[in-house]
Amino acid sequence: EPHCGTDLGLMRTKAEPQADGTYKITGTKIFISAGEHDMAENIIHLVLAKIAGAPEGIKGVSLFVVPKFLVKADGSLGARNALICGSIEHKMGIHGNSTCVMNYDGATGYLLGEPHKGMRAMFTMMNDARLGVALQGLTQSEAAYQNALIYAKDRLQGRSLTGAKEPGKAADPIIVHPDIRRVLMNLKAFNEGARMLLLWCALQGDLSHVSTDDKERELGEDMMGLLTPVLKGYFTDMGFRNATDAQQVLGGHGYIAEWGMEQFVRDARIAMIYEGANGIQALDLVGRKLAMNGGRAVFAWFKLIDDFAQANKSAEMKPYVDALITVRKDLEEATTWMMNNGLNNPDHAGASSMDYLYLFALSGMAFAWAQMARAALPKSHGGTGAEYYQTKLATARYFVDRMLPDRLAHLAKIKTGAEPVMALKAEHF
Amino acid sequence: EPHCGTDLGLMRTKAEPQADGTYKITGTKIFISAGEHDMAENIIHLVLAKIAGAPEGIKGVSLFVVPKFLVKADGSLGARNALICGSIEHKMGIHGNSTCVMNYDGATGYLLGEPHKGMRAMFTMMNDARLGVALQGLTQSEAAYQNALIYAKDRLQGRSLTGAKEPGKAADPIIVHPDIRRVLMNLKAFNEGARMLLLWCALQGDLSHVSTDDKERELGEDMMGLLTPVLKGYFTDMGFRNATDAQQVLGGHGYIAEWGMEQFVRDARIAMIYEGANGIQALDLVGRKLAMNGGRAVFAWFKLIDDFAQANKSAEMKPYVDALITVRKDLEEATTWMMNNGLNNPDHAGASSMDYLYLFALSGMAFAWAQMARAALPKSHGGTGAEYYQTKLATARYFVDRMLPDRLAHLAKIKTGAEPVMALKAEHF
Repeated sequence: EPHCGTDLGLMRTKAEPQADGTYKITGTKIFISAGEHDMAENIIHLVLAKIAGAPEGIKGVSLFVVPKFLVKADGSLGARNALICGSIEHKMGIHGNSTCVMNYDGATGYLLGEPHKGMRAMFTMMNDARLGVALQGLTQSEAAYQNALIYAKDRLQGRSLTGAKEPGKAADPIIVHPDIRRVLMNLKAFNEGARMLLLWCALQGDLSHVSTDDKERELGEDMMGLLTPVLKGYFTDMGFRNATDAQQVLGGHGYIAEWGMEQFVRDARIAMIYEGANGIQALDLVGRKLAMNGGRAVFAWFKLIDDFAQANKSAEMKPYVDALITVRKDLEEATTWMMNNGLNNPDHAGASSMDYLYLFALSGMAFAWAQMARAALPKSHGGTGAEYYQTKLATARYFVDRMLPDRLAHLAKIKTGAEPVMALKAEHF
Repeated sequence: EPHCGTDLGLMRTKAEPQADGTYKITGTKIFISAGEHDMAENIIHLVLAKIAGAPEGIKGVSLFVVPKFLVKADGSLGARNALICGSIEHKMGIHGNSTCVMNYDGATGYLLGEPHKGMRAMFTMMNDARLGVALQGLTQSEAAYQNALIYAKDRLQGRSLTGAKEPGKAADPIIVHPDIRRVLMNLKAFNEGARMLLLWCALQGDLSHVSTDDKERELGEDMMGLLTPVLKGYFTDMGFRNATDAQQVLGGHGYIAEWGMEQFVRDARIAMIYEGANGIQALDLVGRKLAMNGGRAVFAWFKLIDDFAQANKSAEMKPYVDALITVRKDLEEATTWMMNNGLNNPDHAGASSMDYLYLFALSGMAFAWAQMARAALPKSHGGTGAEYYQTKLATARYFVDRMLPDRLAHLAKIKTGAEPVMALKAEHF
């Protein structure tokens, strides 16, 4: 609703119970993706509303199914329901998505789940959507990378600093230039590490449902809960940043519509905002997920890393395991700091939440790259496909040398706490 | 030209000498800002072209004045010159700027400066333009900040983590939330520090022209040369990042056109690309500016900082001077690394150039904030306007605690050198 995005307790949409068990829904919702379109016979809206006499705040919110066309007993479409699209937003990007203002004027709705338990019902969808949006961040980065790579191999401009690489041509392709390489390696190392981490998280999700081992199911659920805000926040921030960096590879050609790169940037931007803005993800991580069950999930995360390090003590694995252990120690230090300081002043947790999310994500990426290194090493010494595995290891080293050092800045910022962030009165800004 | 942006040696536009001393210019130029419009009686194009028989590469490039309308002896407008706007680009932003393809078909041009010295002539304009674009980055960040600040004070959503700040309202304004504060403080500390640094640089520019002291003129020129790529690269990267962060403060409202924030982001993006993409600024810094006159400029920079530290040893100044000295040491370590390693393998300099530019910029920001702290401290203890100076000092501390730690990551990355960046063959990407 226009006046409430994150803070759903402020919601005004009403649901009036009817004699037939349905409800009449009245209110306005904004930013409804695909709220109106002609690509399907019917559109089924899930709508949060308050039943008359419900408790105040989010504990009084219920969830309803509100179809565009009422459905008859035989499944065929009936009368138009009392809802209309009031307008379609003009947005920065994702123009394939009709983002609608939806007006409900006594529309017929059907309660989904129990009365006043709408938030819980919605979060079944929301947790899934957050991982879906994390995947959007990754795929936007991957698409931008593939396009920048083609251009970097094709565009002739300048000569390599170490002597012409294609002396027969008027200039070298720009992929010879170290700063272009830096961008491409950043994207490649993110894309492959993030893909691994997301798949590992999905595996944990599967195990939480189908494992016959109680501990394994619990671990799976803990990892899903812990990593959902981390992946949503980090992957979508990086999706946008990487799309921007890929655009930069094309220079001025990246800024014009013709090449498509600027659309990646505009489209990627929304993923940082929708399904819970990334600041909300960081707050979910430090305010809810860390503390749940006495910190069980985060301690399980540390143990997974420790077990991996114990099991991989070969000299070949050392660079990757050392890097993993280093960032794990940083994360433990930050976590201890959070737990010690966040309780007596929650602003400490809030002020450091985004840096903590990034530090957590870096530990996840280091874990993903260490696992990939373990898989790649035995196949990297020769034989069919050895070059592929050598490339994987070189990319792992790039992550360790050139991306993981961000941990230093995040940890230093976290430990300065809330004072510098909260020092000013609002009127002094 | 379509096939040459940075690499002007590839230029194809021709200039044929005429009997009357003019030249006939023939060729195509792209991305010409305001190349055609009806806001002035005439448009004077500055066009780079090669005179027949000129040396190969950029040493054969000359600069010409090519007016849209030829100008008669009495100053009135004469015939239309043989140039036309072939098309106008569709771009991500800056829609107020008609970005043109310009076709010259034997257009009359007048040589500006000496034959084959066009690059030098152009850089008179270019150096000025780069500082102008640095200012664009700063102003875009400032405009985005002002808009985000209004919204953050106005938008009611959620409650402060430390208890309701406006219990009479349905929710607190979002400026109470630490992660919103973090964004606003980031922008405020950047804007004020960058403004100071740019003005200091402009002062050096003035001194380089008007000082009666030889050493002061030399220092002014050295500082202008050294800081131009730093300010262009850092300010425009930050202008875009800050516009993006300010957009995030508005949540979904930041993504729709109605609020104007998404336009700031789209407009700010170009400043990282035009007048020399930021990767080129970084290369200019490490490849040219560091080495000029045996490193005279960078050593002068260190001495300025050391002199400042020597002159400001009070306990009150300690936090700001300590921070300045710390980042100055990092920068010296990085500079020494660059000089030692860049000579035997220039890819080392290239691969670390962007991190070096950022580290340099942080030393400049620390210098700017230390100077502002020195000015603010005596007036911060009481009396009229003391709150203003206390706010200035709190913002300086925010810079030290929450922005300067990025130096750690930049230095660590610089010292890993070119190997991780250049490890892959092009076909292995």
